[in-house]
Amino acid sequence: MVEPAAYQQTIISTDEATVIAREVRRLIRNGEEQSAWEQLRRLHPADMGSIVATLPRNSREAIVAVMSPDAVVWMFRHMNPVQAARVGTRLGTGVLSAALTQVHPRSAVDILRRLPRARAREVVEVIGGPLEDEHVETPELDTAGAFMVTHFPAVAQAGRVEDARESLRELEGNGHSFTHVFVLDEGQNLAGQISMIDLAMSADQTSVDSLTSPIMAPVSADTPREECARLQRHYNLTQLPVVDDGKLIGVIPATYLLSASVAQDTEQILQVANVAGDSADGPLLGSIRTRLPWLTINLGTTFLAAFTVSLFESTLARVVVLAAFLPVVAGQGGIGGTQTLTLIVRAMALGELVGMRARRLLTRELILGLIHGVWLGVLVAVIAALWKQNLGLALVLGMAMLGNMAMAGVVGAGVPLLLRRIGIDPAVASAVAVTTVTDVFGFLLFLGIASIAINLIV
Amino acid sequence: MVEPAAYQQTIISTDEATVIAREVRRLIRNGEEQSAWEQLRRLHPADMGSIVATLPRNSREAIVAVMSPDAVVWMFRHMNPVQAARVGTRLGTGVLSAALTQVHPRSAVDILRRLPRARAREVVEVIGGPLEDEHVETPELDTAGAFMVTHFPAVAQAGRVEDARESLRELEGNGHSFTHVFVLDEGQNLAGQISMIDLAMSADQTSVDSLTSPIMAPVSADTPREECARLQRHYNLTQLPVVDDGKLIGVIPATYLLSASVAQDTEQILQVANVAGDSADGPLLGSIRTRLPWLTINLGTTFLAAFTVSLFESTLARVVVLAAFLPVVAGQGGIGGTQTLTLIVRAMALGELVGMRARRLLTRELILGLIHGVWLGVLVAVIAALWKQNLGLALVLGMAMLGNMAMAGVVGAGVPLLLRRIGIDPAVASAVAVTTVTDVFGFLLFLGIASIAINLIV
Repeated sequence: MVEPAAYQQTIISTDEATVIAREVRRLIRNGEEQSAWEQLRRLHPADMGSIVATLPRNSREAIVAVMSPDAVVWMFRHMNPVQAARVGTRLGTGVLSAALTQVHPRSAVDILRRLPRARAREVVEVIGGPLEDEHVETPELDTAGAFMVTHFPAVAQAGRVEDARESLRELEGNGHSFTHVFVLDEGQNLAGQISMIDLAMSADQTSVDSLTSPIMAPVSADTPREECARLQRHYNLTQLPVVDDGKLIGVIPATYLLSASVAQDTEQILQVANVAGDSADGPLLGSIRTRLPWLTINLGTTFLAAFTVSLFESTLARVVVLAAFLPVVAGQGGIGGTQTLTLIVRAMALGELVGMRARRLLTRELILGLIHGVWLGVLVAVIAALWKQNLGLALVLGMAMLGNMAMAGVVGAGVPLLLRRIGIDPAVASAVAVTTVTDVFGFLLFLGIASIAINLIV
Repeated sequence: MVEPAAYQQTIISTDEATVIAREVRRLIRNGEEQSAWEQLRRLHPADMGSIVATLPRNSREAIVAVMSPDAVVWMFRHMNPVQAARVGTRLGTGVLSAALTQVHPRSAVDILRRLPRARAREVVEVIGGPLEDEHVETPELDTAGAFMVTHFPAVAQAGRVEDARESLRELEGNGHSFTHVFVLDEGQNLAGQISMIDLAMSADQTSVDSLTSPIMAPVSADTPREECARLQRHYNLTQLPVVDDGKLIGVIPATYLLSASVAQDTEQILQVANVAGDSADGPLLGSIRTRLPWLTINLGTTFLAAFTVSLFESTLARVVVLAAFLPVVAGQGGIGGTQTLTLIVRAMALGELVGMRARRLLTRELILGLIHGVWLGVLVAVIAALWKQNLGLALVLGMAMLGNMAMAGVVGAGVPLLLRRIGIDPAVASAVAVTTVTDVFGFLLFLGIASIAINLIV
């Protein structure tokens, strides 16, 4: 299926897209849907999709109503599932079903999951086939099987290059993102690969076998997306064959490897902030489901900090000015710990710390924490001394800062290392754990020293 | 230059790599460098590199000493620049220079920048040519020009496929990661492209011109890496031609697009935590230079929070128990704001919010903040009431929580939107700004309401 030329004319910058989006919104508001569509139809479907997806609900309905079914399908092929689901709820079941059969099965399942349940069932009934009901219920979206394509270039090992050329024609324009052709033996088992360029430059009579090189990293359908992304990055690969019992069942080409890599990074970014699975513009209920549990867990940890402070109520009652510096101690520790944590988690994800000893990383961060602590401790002491004219307070604050920055370095590195050792993804829970420790330890240190040295402060 | 088979035999999992790394470390500690090298030489150079890079300094020197220069070069080709520079400081100038001429120029410049200045000059003198001194001083590592390769497949528009096959042979094994061949007209200007598979399956006598399709997204040498990554993701491309005045000067193939995309994501992850440019295992001085300025800026913002608290010293003196709840109000606001902020920053980076109105995002986050605030406000009030047996305190705390969560939603979305509008990368400064607002506003609200309603609490 070749994309009609009319839909792939120009690429535009995000600034241009913003201007067009504004114009389209204005036209639809004025009831000029047809003019709005004229603006959109000149664009690449990827831009068309991202503009339509960001329209207010009524405008989205209005513009989809004047679009041709073909245009809707092309737009769907270039939208991400969140956006596609939002537009999809405004489409008739017929158009939506047609569109979903044209996108990658993984995307189709992902879109279906985001539709209202009843709607999804309607569509599945129309589509039938590969998108059975159970897939809608329990898709495994984060595996090689979900990312692979099942139309891929494969040639017979026994033949010559001219035979290989012939068999490639069966793909009918579906092979433009492949860098290698796969070679199958007589039993249809995966025997190796040939780079496209080698095939392109070889003479007709060359034997396929003489061009074949070994497969580097075959994966199976249930290999996690994360491992696929790692293999690609670490070994610098452009595509991964998906194998089941020696048979080639699919291929993840470069574009999907890129998608997998970006999706993996997005998940990691969102996991560190405890919003994994949420989207900036999805249904409210989904956002609440993602965020509120973490906010509630975090409430527990802030009460740990509150409890720590309350242990020192008598000290605070004598020197109420101490309360003002609680956010300074906790804030700096939290930032320092998060800096370390983020570096370590990212380095782990990129495989940069494989085989490195935990002790070395911990020592490094402890030293850095001490250096930062000395600087920040002196600074905070000077400011406190000038502001509150209280040398005892300045001294206590400076010491607490030094101690808490050192602790921040150690837990910032230690928590992800520990989580990984016990088999938990360090991106998931590290941030809450680290800030809890820096809060509680910071308050213990600051108010503890203050209690002991209270005669210096009062 | 073809990689020797001996260096590309097996791929291994990170667990296997960890086990081998431990064994290699043990062997070197026992003085058995040769046995350690036997372990390593069976590995893919990417694994060899990541294991050698994580060895302690003395062991690294010992193992590099027994490696053949060839092996060092192959290893360098598969290492990231931070790791390569660490190994590079232990190499003789001759071996290091030889290795650097074999890696991508961008990586070579990046590695040179990470070496001691005097060392880098020595190497540059040996290498000469493309890595002149000024490149070491002022490289622009984040542009298409740095990521492109200058050996790429190009064929003449006027010829036939058999001529094209002939000209591809000139690449000598450097074309394995390309999906398309570029087509040049008589004036050597870029005229279009042909997918490799189309070329591979076409007969010798087919004219090149008949296979040529238009170029989608040409970039120039100074196009930022970020825009290259965006074009790839948004338009689902597998390679980008780099053009200067109509002439094709380079190509970013799929593997480098992937590298650019991963590097872009890494920078974003690190920027949100204010550690961009740092590495988990680089020189200490580099880490201090990256992190300490942000820690110092953050100190200023925590003093803003401290100043806010100190405005209410008389209230705190009367009801010292309020101090214990300061971290609860600030902590929840910070987490809520960071959740929103992270989602928005990531969605912006992926181009998902193009053309979406700020008001819509702000309203959505305000509503979410209010919903979260009601739940957390009730919860926190109940806990406080049970713990401190003080209904007035519970009421004040619950109200402050509600208000601060709503504020967290608004600033979490508002700060990145505002920064983008005024042309600042929202990933850079958002986190500090958001937590400052939630701290200061949270304390103002909590202690302000407490001051007004002090008779309910005492």
